[in-house]
Amino acid sequence: MKNKIQQLFTIAYPIIQGGMVWNSGWRLASAVSNSGGLGLIGAGSLKPEVLKEHIVKAKRATSQPFGVNVPIFSPYAEEQINVIISSGVKVVFTSAGSPNTYTSLLKSHGILVAHVVSSVKFALKAELAGVDAVVAEGFEAGGHNGREETTTFCLIPDVASRVNIPLIAAGGIATGEGILAAMTLGADGVQLGSRFAATEEASSHPNFKQLIVDAKEGDTELRLKQLAPVRLLKNSFYKQIAALEAQGASVEKLKDALGKGRAMKGMFEGDLIEGELEIGQISSLISSILPVKVVFEQLLEEYRLAVQLYETEKYRF
Amino acid sequence: MKNKIQQLFTIAYPIIQGGMVWNSGWRLASAVSNSGGLGLIGAGSLKPEVLKEHIVKAKRATSQPFGVNVPIFSPYAEEQINVIISSGVKVVFTSAGSPNTYTSLLKSHGILVAHVVSSVKFALKAELAGVDAVVAEGFEAGGHNGREETTTFCLIPDVASRVNIPLIAAGGIATGEGILAAMTLGADGVQLGSRFAATEEASSHPNFKQLIVDAKEGDTELRLKQLAPVRLLKNSFYKQIAALEAQGASVEKLKDALGKGRAMKGMFEGDLIEGELEIGQISSLISSILPVKVVFEQLLEEYRLAVQLYETEKYRF
Repeated sequence: MKNKIQQLFTIAYPIIQGGMVWNSGWRLASAVSNSGGLGLIGAGSLKPEVLKEHIVKAKRATSQPFGVNVPIFSPYAEEQINVIISSGVKVVFTSAGSPNTYTSLLKSHGILVAHVVSSVKFALKAELAGVDAVVAEGFEAGGHNGREETTTFCLIPDVASRVNIPLIAAGGIATGEGILAAMTLGADGVQLGSRFAATEEASSHPNFKQLIVDAKEGDTELRLKQLAPVRLLKNSFYKQIAALEAQGASVEKLKDALGKGRAMKGMFEGDLIEGELEIGQISSLISSILPVKVVFEQLLEEYRLAVQLYETEKYRF
Repeated sequence: MKNKIQQLFTIAYPIIQGGMVWNSGWRLASAVSNSGGLGLIGAGSLKPEVLKEHIVKAKRATSQPFGVNVPIFSPYAEEQINVIISSGVKVVFTSAGSPNTYTSLLKSHGILVAHVVSSVKFALKAELAGVDAVVAEGFEAGGHNGREETTTFCLIPDVASRVNIPLIAAGGIATGEGILAAMTLGADGVQLGSRFAATEEASSHPNFKQLIVDAKEGDTELRLKQLAPVRLLKNSFYKQIAALEAQGASVEKLKDALGKGRAMKGMFEGDLIEGELEIGQISSLISSILPVKVVFEQLLEEYRLAVQLYETEKYRF
């Protein structure tokens, strides 16, 4: 007896670690897979030859299934896809682009494909493109995000009622209670980003990890909606962008202010002032940097306790 | 055996109907209370003498507890509070202002007070002010909303872990599964707005009710953040505002564009072009205008089915 996501990816728990630029290299992905979830290498910040190294190292570090997340808009996407195919990776999560671009190619090589969407419309498009599962990611998620601003609470039941393929909920989930709530809303499994960014195995800078732990409710905001909407921690760089946007700055001005390499500077090099710091709203609930194994123990304990609570009077009416 | 919200308000189900301008008069509030929930008259759109009439009519229409929602920023708030006290209403929900303004006065008259908040900070402030319960309302909620943009999925567990008073979740809830998910995240009860706006008993215009039913995912957006953030359906009026905001329009220009009486025009008079149409994201999940009694039957059936599903393999890991 397994649920759809456990069956699809042959994993013990329907818990997926989101592929995150500058956070999720082979070390994080393999630790998650070794703990019974599905780890994803985030290819967004890796040139093809570096991605290859990460895949080789992940294969050495785990005998369990793991995958790669590929943002389709990246100039390296095609090369990355070729690396993935030639390396024998069996799972790919695509995002930030059309699911039609690589799904057929990947599936012709026996690779399982999930596609990340932020709306019902794109979920239906992904299903039509033949993906094996869809990740529906709410407005509260960290990093790049959809234009519809639909939250996890509203997006999950809507997508669940419209698609027939397995549904993975993302955005706002960092606890066992959150996993259970997302599944109650119609998800078959969950993808967690922020919680895994604040682990010992994440490749991000310790400064950034500490800021995730310190973040409180209200400390992130979705910005740069004219370029590509992205949820940022409210640091000095964020304030520059917010000020420009309040003035009605042009796309060109915003691009200039963003410049190149901001995400690397912030999350990988630990420049908390000038760097772009991408994290989810649910960072408010994350209070410690832990080994991945301990995160899984906590998630599963919280989940099981939450299920048991339905026997109590709070829920009887 | 009752949960905290059932005990506090002496109601059969911990389901509260949000007080909504132009939608929730005595007819809706009494129908909700007669169905076992807590109905609220939305005072925001009612002058004090009209509010008094609604209270008298609600008392005739139900022997069950009902309440009044009072937006504190309203120029009529003080008079409304006096009407409430002199009419013997036993429950008040305050919103859009400081919980310190009226809580002591109301409690000195034996009135139960709940306060609506959009952040952890304001939840703590409300608890300190001595309210009996706090309503934590997420970004996805319709109408006026907080500046933090924290979603229900992130806000509820955070507030639940910080306050000791009963917690009511609002924003994005329109189904039994949604009720169960909100409680899983830490709420003791729920407040539903949009679902009750699309009922036969709501006082809003049939044109507006039909638009709620027709709304799809992505059809609302939080706008007018420089004035007071409000979630709107994307009609012609919304487009005017969105265009002005994209140009970096001043507060004065936005106030001019908004003018007076837009909400009445849209929701009460049914002008779907020039009116301000306030509704939640979860309108995407509402597909019929129903009598309140039937809404309750559906919510309770969905809730109970959702609880039963925890016995199935989907949830076992």
